[in-house]
Amino acid sequence: MTSAAGWIEKTLDYRFRDNERLSQALTHRSAGGRHNERLEFLGDAVLGMIIAETLFLRVPDAEEGYLTRLRANLVRRETLAEIGAEIGLGDWLRLGAGELKSGGFRRASILANGVEAVLGAIYLDSGLGAVRSVIERLYADRLQSLPADTELKDSKTRLQEILQSRGLDLPEYATESVSGEAHKRHFEVACRVAALGFRTTAGGRSRRQAEQRAAKAMIERIQNG
Amino acid sequence: MTSAAGWIEKTLDYRFRDNERLSQALTHRSAGGRHNERLEFLGDAVLGMIIAETLFLRVPDAEEGYLTRLRANLVRRETLAEIGAEIGLGDWLRLGAGELKSGGFRRASILANGVEAVLGAIYLDSGLGAVRSVIERLYADRLQSLPADTELKDSKTRLQEILQSRGLDLPEYATESVSGEAHKRHFEVACRVAALGFRTTAGGRSRRQAEQRAAKAMIERIQNG
Repeated sequence: MTSAAGWIEKTLDYRFRDNERLSQALTHRSAGGRHNERLEFLGDAVLGMIIAETLFLRVPDAEEGYLTRLRANLVRRETLAEIGAEIGLGDWLRLGAGELKSGGFRRASILANGVEAVLGAIYLDSGLGAVRSVIERLYADRLQSLPADTELKDSKTRLQEILQSRGLDLPEYATESVSGEAHKRHFEVACRVAALGFRTTAGGRSRRQAEQRAAKAMIERIQNG
Repeated sequence: MTSAAGWIEKTLDYRFRDNERLSQALTHRSAGGRHNERLEFLGDAVLGMIIAETLFLRVPDAEEGYLTRLRANLVRRETLAEIGAEIGLGDWLRLGAGELKSGGFRRASILANGVEAVLGAIYLDSGLGAVRSVIERLYADRLQSLPADTELKDSKTRLQEILQSRGLDLPEYATESVSGEAHKRHFEVACRVAALGFRTTAGGRSRRQAEQRAAKAMIERIQNG
């Protein structure tokens, strides 16, 4: 394909009225000039709304908590970066010299923001109906196979529910140690379920992360008897 | 006024096609039956989108960070609870016996959720244009006088920017003491700016809250010379 407009038409089945909008959506801040951050802000809100509406209509028996977790799962950065990679967005983004070389996390974040910016540009260009069609196309597979609620809950919440269902007290978490300098701390946390006499430990880059991992280990411990 | 529909028509200039939707939006979970939580989920997303769009169009020179802070300020629970109180939503909500008696935080939270549920119901009833008109009406004063960016930034961020603008090192925070039981801890935190020889302390219910307060005291200390 020779143009960004042609690529969008082929992958998203959408034709921009004003190609300047597409051009801006594909321009990362590092490239200078009119960049895509404001469009990203708009696209983030539009995507959140359309996914909420779609879930509301498609899963009529879901309670609000499940809807909220489903939405968070569908609009989180990792999912957006995956979508960006699937449509080959990286080939069409205009980046500054420094960003071109960056990989890993930075790259995923730029892809995710780029997807939102393109959606924001389509909304500005043609309104809600057009962007809804594009989002339904981008999310078709993911909306076909929505994860069950248990898959979406974090480990601490799941552990709490497992214990409550057995009439047991809540687990206790204790920080065992904190090491490393301010910008790369390491936390070691223990999770204890007194009634079962079980104790697990785990480490992480934040107390929260370590607690989640210790809770996950505890769930496995309980499920293995 | 004798009916909820009449109240909505008078306060929001909107007439429901299907009054069942309004009725559901006004029913708190505690009242039993079809309650408003799913509508609240939808309304939250719709409100977030319309406020984003409105800010995007009204503040064309604002960068993404400022737009994000403005939006967070306009859709946070406190603002929504204020709007709920302004339109007299409390008189029309159907609550269970237990909730009727609750005051303070619980009541504010119920009002905020109720506002979102009504907006979700209007969106379902008539689509984006109708709910946009209602939101612009509810937010008219707030959109007329948007806070400056400095008012929106938290104290730690503002302190950091003040010090950076003077070429000074970042402040240091240290926890001085933690007291109280798990569910009502009290943190005492000190903030120190070595280059100025200033030190402030403050307390709070979380480390973050105490740090914010100590940073605020430090900003005042610096601004008073």
